[in-house]
Amino acid sequence: MAVQTVAADSTTPDAAEKTGGSPFDLGAAVALSCRECGTRTPLGPSFVCLECFGPLEVAYELPTGDPEGLRKRIEAGPASMWRYAPLLPVPADVADKPNLNPGFTQLVKADRLAAELGVTGGLYVKDDSGNPTHSFKDRPVAIALEAARAFGLTTLSCSSTGNLAGAVGAAASRAGLRSCVFIPDGLEQSKVVMAAVYGGELVAINGTYDDVNRFCSELIGDPLGEGWGFTNVNLRPFYAEGSKSLAYEICEQLGWRLPDQIVIPVASGCQLVKIDKGLRELIRLGLVEDRPFRIFAAQAEGCSPVSRAFKEGTDAVRPVKKPDTIAKSLAIGDPADGPYVIDICRRTGGAVEDVDDAQIVDAIQLLARTEGVFAETAGGVTLGVTRKLIEAGALDPTLTTVVLNTGDGLKTLDAVAPTARPTALIRPSLDAFRAAGLA
Amino acid sequence: MAVQTVAADSTTPDAAEKTGGSPFDLGAAVALSCRECGTRTPLGPSFVCLECFGPLEVAYELPTGDPEGLRKRIEAGPASMWRYAPLLPVPADVADKPNLNPGFTQLVKADRLAAELGVTGGLYVKDDSGNPTHSFKDRPVAIALEAARAFGLTTLSCSSTGNLAGAVGAAASRAGLRSCVFIPDGLEQSKVVMAAVYGGELVAINGTYDDVNRFCSELIGDPLGEGWGFTNVNLRPFYAEGSKSLAYEICEQLGWRLPDQIVIPVASGCQLVKIDKGLRELIRLGLVEDRPFRIFAAQAEGCSPVSRAFKEGTDAVRPVKKPDTIAKSLAIGDPADGPYVIDICRRTGGAVEDVDDAQIVDAIQLLARTEGVFAETAGGVTLGVTRKLIEAGALDPTLTTVVLNTGDGLKTLDAVAPTARPTALIRPSLDAFRAAGLA
Ligand SMILES: Cc1ncc(COP(=O)(O)O)c(C=O)c1O
Ligand SMILES: Cc1ncc(COP(=O)(O)O)c(C=O)c1O
Ligand SMILES: [Zn+2]
Ligand SMILES: [Zn+2]
Repeated sequence: MAVQTVAADSTTPDAAEKTGGSPFDLGAAVALSCRECGTRTPLGPSFVCLECFGPLEVAYELPTGDPEGLRKRIEAGPASMWRYAPLLPVPADVADKPNLNPGFTQLVKADRLAAELGVTGGLYVKDDSGNPTHSFKDRPVAIALEAARAFGLTTLSCSSTGNLAGAVGAAASRAGLRSCVFIPDGLEQSKVVMAAVYGGELVAINGTYDDVNRFCSELIGDPLGEGWGFTNVNLRPFYAEGSKSLAYEICEQLGWRLPDQIVIPVASGCQLVKIDKGLRELIRLGLVEDRPFRIFAAQAEGCSPVSRAFKEGTDAVRPVKKPDTIAKSLAIGDPADGPYVIDICRRTGGAVEDVDDAQIVDAIQLLARTEGVFAETAGGVTLGVTRKLIEAGALDPTLTTVVLNTGDGLKTLDAVAPTARPTALIRPSLDAFRAAGLA
Repeated sequence: MAVQTVAADSTTPDAAEKTGGSPFDLGAAVALSCRECGTRTPLGPSFVCLECFGPLEVAYELPTGDPEGLRKRIEAGPASMWRYAPLLPVPADVADKPNLNPGFTQLVKADRLAAELGVTGGLYVKDDSGNPTHSFKDRPVAIALEAARAFGLTTLSCSSTGNLAGAVGAAASRAGLRSCVFIPDGLEQSKVVMAAVYGGELVAINGTYDDVNRFCSELIGDPLGEGWGFTNVNLRPFYAEGSKSLAYEICEQLGWRLPDQIVIPVASGCQLVKIDKGLRELIRLGLVEDRPFRIFAAQAEGCSPVSRAFKEGTDAVRPVKKPDTIAKSLAIGDPADGPYVIDICRRTGGAVEDVDDAQIVDAIQLLARTEGVFAETAGGVTLGVTRKLIEAGALDPTLTTVVLNTGDGLKTLDAVAPTARPTALIRPSLDAFRAAGLA
């Protein structure tokens, strides 16, 4: 199979020269490259360009030239994200190492939901609640874990709005690494318990997620943080790549076809940026036909810095100081990838929109009632925004549309607990049942 | 491919004559047959033998004669239990109908757990928390749904200890059927919310699970219950077959090999009986080598009627009136399949054992800490019993052993919530972190 270097960022073709000679076996990954200026750095636990302070991302030598062979190889792979190992910064034998083997979750053809929303072009829910810790975070963490192993890091860490904490704790336990994760005080009980149950250290911090994140950046610079891999800070270039697998799976599950429209929740924006990257890679590799696709971003009104900037026509994202939303997993007030999200949504003809708490709850219930999928609040945000965009005419109901459910309703019970209750409480008798009037 | 009738119960070869001519397309299923006397009844929503009141089960014409062809066909099938559609009572196109597509969950090679338990022969956790509603119940419900569709039933129902309620609610919503499920009062909040969120009727009943179950049997005999399919009552013969898929998956995932030992939690006993049936079918079909396997059953001390009978050397299972255990999903005091469980464990050289609440919690934590799998209390029961049986010398640590995790820790948070908490709560500063002494 011919090997051709693919630029990490298609806008900086200069970055495409081969670095090679890396001492680390991370598959097709050959270097880190700056998303802003294209400068290359060797593979390692670095995340900031030393030239311009731009964010680093993984640059590859991807296996081009034989798309049919690559497709066959993928289809013969395991029923996990590791079927795409050739396109990810992981060793070829990654599936044989102790890890959570996330991914290859269901793409649900949501015909009953489509009927309610008036979508005629095919509506799909990519249901990432099927991952091992029941959120999409298992994907990026699985990649960060391989990077940590490669770089000899012994403690897996992160700042988290809840889901990442559980994903890191579980992955570290599976792999036999130490973990120490940081969360803002006041998260949902399920997320706190899950983050703690795997037996690593769990540190709650008085403050918002953004406070936690700043603290983690400090910790990395301190001797205290030596040997630590923060999945979403110093391992972020690797971590982030995990979300490309969502793009790959969606296209494969659509029969190696791009969706026309895709709606993605945004906290830091990392996932959305990498899904866009993944879709563009599939085009470049010849695995899907080159057709336009539109990317839409979803936020919660109570923490919608990206949506606000998009609507104001700027890409200067002003941080939200005190997020206030039931979608706690999306409560990042100062999103690192905010400007990139805006660029992508503009470039592809998409949009950024937000919904309020009541609309989030409505959407969770709508999805559960029509498709039997119980989403967490982040999923409610995504479906709520989808509905709003359809009503506003921004989403075309005649086109193939994919909505992401990135998390699990069991982790945000409080959102629906007030209404999701028994219809009746009766004695065990037919008379009592008859009297309840349910038959 | 040659077709040969396979007896539903290998001890009643008379039942093997072909019935055929069924008006229902339920794949290889040709009739119902009595587990006690072998009498055959046509396919339909029946569950009791009219000759002897024994339980009915599905009889098949399974595709024998070309094991290699069958294996290839299975391996080319979808990444769900429908890859085994030829061996289940479902139409061949089942995967194309709206359903939850459960199954093909991970078989986790649990090396770190094995090291702690001293198992050297290979230890695996079959992790059914990866199913759509996060318990194994999605499997039997998916089969019951097909039966309900075939028989024209319009309301899906059940009596449930919690997991089944959610599985039925979700499956009915996906399929567009009405649902009305019955639970005992006092279940875990997560299970109640999940059972309700899909929008069907949820009726809580003052009493134990056994009271709920008796009530459902009454309801079936009443005009009120007309057109209702109770997954675990009048659709039980079909429902039950869903658990065969666990046996198929385990063997396929072991490389088409039988495990030497398998540990299974028991409430009604239905799952265990069908896993045994599934393993024996694979042998008869030539898909695995015919070798002995041992089946072990796990109960919670606070509701251990089967374990008690086994230890007393009888198969007369005396009901437990007031179950008292944190493993509420296993709290069936009068288990329909109890005597069959005892037979199977005796015949295969296995055993039935039970553990108390503290051992259940310990086992949940052990599994989370070593493998990053967060099990519900039922999973704690199964692993706790596994440990106890190893210590007692009843389970051979040098043999390949599979432990079932049938449910999800997020549904039984209270079991671990007292200890699964943040290690520290600090201000976002390095000094505060240093003071906490965690680095
Ligand atoms: C369930 C869920 N969905 C979406 C997101 C957003 O991810 P990102 O920060 O990559 O935008 C998160 C982040 O924590 C999340 O937990
Ligand atoms: C999680 C879990 N495991 C095991 C069982 C036992 O199943 P069975 O009744 O088939 O013995 C149940 C039953 O509800 C369950 O919910
Ligand atoms: Zn730069
Ligand atoms: Zn009979």
